[in-house]
Formats: sequence, C-alpha cells, structure tokens
Amino acid sequence: MKVLNQQFQIKYHYPVHFTTSLFDPANRALAHFLMEVDTRPEQHLLVVADTGLWHAQPALEDTLINYFHALLPHYRLYFVQIPAGEEAKNNPIYLEEILRSIDRHGLDRHSLVIGIGGGAVLDLAGYAAAIAHRGIRHIRIPTTVLSQNDSGVGVKNGINFLGKKNFLGTFAPPLAVFNDISLLHTLSDRHWCSGIAEAIKVALIKDADFFHWLETHAEVLLNRDTSAMEQLIYRCAALHLAHIASGDPFESGSSRPLDFGHWSAHKLEQMTDFSLTHGEAVAIGMAIDVLYSGKAGWLDEDSVHRILRLLEKLQFSLYHPLLEEETLLEGLREFREHLGGELTIMLLRAIGTGDNTHTMDHHLIQQCIADLRETSDLHI
Amino acid sequence: MKVLNQQFQIKYHYPVHFTTSLFDPANRALAHFLMEVDTRPEQHLLVVADTGLWHAQPALEDTLINYFHALLPHYRLYFVQIPAGEEAKNNPIYLEEILRSIDRHGLDRHSLVIGIGGGAVLDLAGYAAAIAHRGIRHIRIPTTVLSQNDSGVGVKNGINFLGKKNFLGTFAPPLAVFNDISLLHTLSDRHWCSGIAEAIKVALIKDADFFHWLETHAEVLLNRDTSAMEQLIYRCAALHLAHIASGDPFESGSSRPLDFGHWSAHKLEQMTDFSLTHGEAVAIGMAIDVLYSGKAGWLDEDSVHRILRLLEKLQFSLYHPLLEEETLLEGLREFREHLGGELTIMLLRAIGTGDNTHTMDHHLIQQCIADLRETSDLHI
Repeated sequence: MKVLNQQFQIKYHYPVHFTTSLFDPANRALAHFLMEVDTRPEQHLLVVADTGLWHAQPALEDTLINYFHALLPHYRLYFVQIPAGEEAKNNPIYLEEILRSIDRHGLDRHSLVIGIGGGAVLDLAGYAAAIAHRGIRHIRIPTTVLSQNDSGVGVKNGINFLGKKNFLGTFAPPLAVFNDISLLHTLSDRHWCSGIAEAIKVALIKDADFFHWLETHAEVLLNRDTSAMEQLIYRCAALHLAHIASGDPFESGSSRPLDFGHWSAHKLEQMTDFSLTHGEAVAIGMAIDVLYSGKAGWLDEDSVHRILRLLEKLQFSLYHPLLEEETLLEGLREFREHLGGELTIMLLRAIGTGDNTHTMDHHLIQQCIADLRETSDLHI
Repeated sequence: MKVLNQQFQIKYHYPVHFTTSLFDPANRALAHFLMEVDTRPEQHLLVVADTGLWHAQPALEDTLINYFHALLPHYRLYFVQIPAGEEAKNNPIYLEEILRSIDRHGLDRHSLVIGIGGGAVLDLAGYAAAIAHRGIRHIRIPTTVLSQNDSGVGVKNGINFLGKKNFLGTFAPPLAVFNDISLLHTLSDRHWCSGIAEAIKVALIKDADFFHWLETHAEVLLNRDTSAMEQLIYRCAALHLAHIASGDPFESGSSRPLDFGHWSAHKLEQMTDFSLTHGEAVAIGMAIDVLYSGKAGWLDEDSVHRILRLLEKLQFSLYHPLLEEETLLEGLREFREHLGGELTIMLLRAIGTGDNTHTMDHHLIQQCIADLRETSDLHI
C-alpha cells in the first residue's frame, strides 16, 4: 500500500472600508478598489439588491448607475431585486433567480456580484456567488447596523433549507466589504436599535472597555447619533474580524465563541416565524445566558444587572411567551448539530471574558426564563 | 474613511491511499485512518453509492457493513444510491435526496459522507457534503480508472445546471481518498480503457518519461493487467496532486493546464448527450489540440504521430461526426467563461511540455478535424 500526502494552503485577504455616500462620484473608494483588482476592458457586474432598501431609497439605483457611468463606464450593470429579511433565504426561487441571471449575462469567476442589503440578502447573494462557476468574486455592501457590524464583514453565507436556518452554505471570503453609514439613515428605529445587540455581544465576550463605551453611549445611540453609530460599527467589526483571523476562520472545530446567546436566539427566530429580528432574538438569548452565567456561579450579580440594564436601556424586550415552550431546548441540539462535535456554549466569566461550557442544565435555563418573565411582568 | 484589512490562511491536508480490498477486515487502512481523525463515541456515516458499482458488485454493501461492524462498531451507516454517470449531476433530485438524508440522520460537520463510485457520483456527493452545514467532512472512494487517477484525487466538486456542465460547485478538499484497485475489476472494457485518456493527458503536459511508459505498456493495459494499471493510476494521481499543490489549487487565475484537450471534449460530451464517456471525449479533444499544436508549428510532426498512434493503440476513436458542427466552437467560449479572464488554452511544445495560447484559429481547428475525419475514413 502506498500513500500520497496532499498539502497546500490558501491565503485570503479582503479590505473592509468604512465610508459615507459610497455612490457619490466624489467618493472614489469603490472605483479605486475596482480599478486595482480588475483590468478587464469590459466587466460584468450583477447587483443583488434588497427591495427594502430600494423602496426606502428610490434614487439609489440611478445614483449607482450614474456612479459607474461616471467612473467605470466599461462596467455593464445588471440588477436582481430580492425581498428583505428571512424570505430571501427561505424561498429557493430567489437563489435560482440570481443563478439564472449570472448565466444569462455570461458572468464568469472574474466578474462581480455585489450584494447590497441586509444580512439575509447578503447571505443569499454570497451563497449564489460562491457556488456559481465554483465561485464568482463578490463584494458586500451591508445596509443595516447588524450586517455592517457583524455578518456582512465575515466569511459565511447561506440559505435555509428543510426549515433549518443556514442548512446550506459555504465559507467564502468576499473580495471586499464597503460599509456606508449613509445607507443606514432610512432604517426604521427598530432595525437601527436591534443591530446593536451584536455589538453588545462582542463587547461581552471580548472587550470590557467597549461594553463601558456602550453603556455611556446608549442614550445617543438611541437618538440615532451618526457619529456614535460609526464608532460602534467600526469597533464591533474590528473585533469580529480579529476574532475570525486569529481563530478558526472556517470553523473546523466545535467552538462558536461569536455565537454567544445564539443557541436560543436561532430557535426563537424560527419559533416566532422570524417576527423577531435577529438582534431582538439575540438580546433575549444573551439575557438567558447572562442570567445562566450568574446562576452557575461564573458571573457576579452586579455584572448580570449591568448587562440586563444596558439591554433594557436600548429598549430590547427580554421576554417572549414562546420561551416557555419545551421546543426552545431543541435549540441546544440544533446549535451543536450545525457545527458538530461536542456541545460548546459560551458563557461569561466577567464582562469582556467568555468561557466555554459543554453542558447546559435545563432546569437552570428554565429558572432564567422565569426570571425574565417576572421582570417583564413588572414592566407591564 | 477607514479601512480594516482582513487576512488569514487556511491549511489543507489530505492523504490519498492506494490499496486493494479496502473492505476486507484484514485491510486496516480505512479503519486506522478513521480512528485517527475521529474520536466520537458514536459516529454517523452516510454512504453515497454508485448504483452501477452496486449492481456490478452485489456483495459490496454487505462487505462494507461487515467491515464497520468488525472494526468500527460505533459507526452508524446510512446509504443513498445514485445512478452512475452524468444523470447524477443533471437531475437535481439526487442532490436533494442526499441533503434530505443528511438532515434525517442528523449528520453534522464532524460526521462523514463517503462517496463510492465514478467521477459523476463523487462530484455530486462532494458537492452535497460541501454545502450542507457549510461543509461536512467527506471521503472519496473512486471506483473507475478515470476517477482514481484524476478527478477523484482533486479538490473540485459540482453538478450541472441550466444545461451547463459543472455550473454549480465548490472547491472542497476531501478528508481523504482511498483508491482501491480491486474495485476496478468489474469495470467494462470501455470504461477501463477510456480512463487512460487522462493519464495520457497528464503525461503529455508534464512528463515525457511517463508518456514513454504508456507507449510501452499500452498492450498490457489493454489486456487489463492489474499491476500496470496500479502503476498508471499512482503515477497519474501523483502528477495531478503535485500540480494542484504547486499551482493555484482553487483556480483564482485563468489558466487551466490540467484541462488540456478539454475545451472541445466538454462541448462534445454535451453535444452527444454524454453518449461518449469523458475519457473518450478527452481523447478526441487531445487529438484536435495535438494536431493544432503541430499545425501551429509548436510541436514536431513525429511527436504528433506518436501521440495519435498511442491513442489509437488504446482503441480510442478520434473522430465524431458532431465535430463538424459550428456549435463545437462554442466550447471555446464556455471554457473561457467557466474560469473567467482571458481565453487560455494549453497546447504542446513537445511531449511532456505544455504551453498556453490565448487565441485559437477557427480555420486551423477545422483543418485538424478534417484530418481526423480522413484518418477515420481510412480505418473503415
């Protein structure tokens, strides 16, 4: 018997730009980047656009077309519109629509797919780009707080299948990410706030100073202060990127440290038919795991209260009647099943310091939920 | 404006085993490997089996079950049967069948999908494994000459979509490959021979000594000498692996040196509705590009004749009436479109030495086809 050992490594690199008015011809960030990476005399670009954003900013498509016309006239633009939110990932018709468009317009691996929208549309666009021709280059332009500070800067994509969130997907780093703060202006207050949940998450597990910053800026963030939000997004994205690069970018292990509070959040999103936003569900999920960390003796009581207070200050509702259903606990199994290996849940040792556990006591979880119900009753 | 530069690298490693009677409990290769990479107390394994092989070797499933029962009793085995050949990649129902099975049996990223079969079944199984849960570990057991010496040891997977070969797919290195020579015994003579085409290809572009070896062993290979075939597969696989590791494993450039002779081969497979095997089409495609290399003044006439003689000796038919159709030339565009960038076709400077060209003269291609028609008329 003989054995040949195959071995190689692949280097990945992509810039994440933080800018404003990305499609103003005075802003050369996107044009400069494209001229650097692309020397084709004619280029094909498919824009996968979030209908939510397209309705909120009706001039955007023309602004974009004018930008390319002025600075990159050799680009041929095509558009596909995809409904905002989980519908984009639930209905396979949208994946097919993007793939057919890629085929119809003759896009190849060196062409470009640009996703512009919230996390769900970007997840879908990234997935379509990743599997067509074994990977077309794609650029992400996230247009929600949540996607600018979290999912949009990462390396994952995916769609739902057989009723399971992200059952299909790949790891496929983008060619670049452009975070444009001006695209957030038309977000509803609900989505503006709920995206902050992921910033709290990353602060809790990685960066006590950032948590303190969030406490002191909660008020101005609520009042939609652009400069505070810019700082929040930059800092949260930086922590997210550093984590990916330093750890296990394509998640070959069993640990999901960036998914603090997510085992119940994912399940709750499903159970509520996605009537909760991802951020709202994560806020509840974090509240459960923060209380659990306290009851397990990992986290001091004062920290528990500080965290819950910040979540409430940002107007997150920390209870939902469906938390009482047994089904919620299936979230633990599904969370494990997605990565495989041993169940690995991150809890908190302190604000800014996460640590893994491999078992969760169902009785203790129920006590945490009872606490949340009682506190919510007080508020009514 | 600020920019964060994300950067990381991913290391890939997988062994390619060359063995015989893989599922004989006396052969510990597979069991040892699995015990090394997997320490779970209970493991789930989905076998994606090629019906062609399953019919030809009816005892195989029991042999496999007995092997695991004897050596890895903590493995739970599940089976999905997929029709052999291009049908596996053409009909989306088979992809869905594998994905549903992965879901039903609760496979996670650390579970295993083993594909056993010819190249098409392995391409499908690898694709399903790559997109489910963003990548379940998969092992390939190729069971044709073609897949053992070529596609099965590589990093690609894929299925056909919108009538285009491999329109959907990813680059996803396997966890391991096991080449079992005993699985080839039930191959038809046609498939036994046609797989040799890829060995000739890699010899032509990389290794003149190997080409000479093929010339001297053509007779015994035709007579199904196992030891000669073992040597051929090992050498061809080794060249293939070395090429992948040294070059551009995930094909971010425009060059496709391992696809010598393939621009017309892919098109011809499509045009004949896959009534030609891949190897048969590649033999014709190489004949065209060898003649072209000669007519373009790159390759001396003696070498052209030696190559055509070897192909004929191995009973490849080097002409097909559909070569005369204009459609064939669309193969050039589709070949370019798949990778993107500039058209890049490998031709020969000498036996063992390939070189790229970026234009193909249609008139010269037609002359090559006319030559093949005339030679084939002589044989009738």
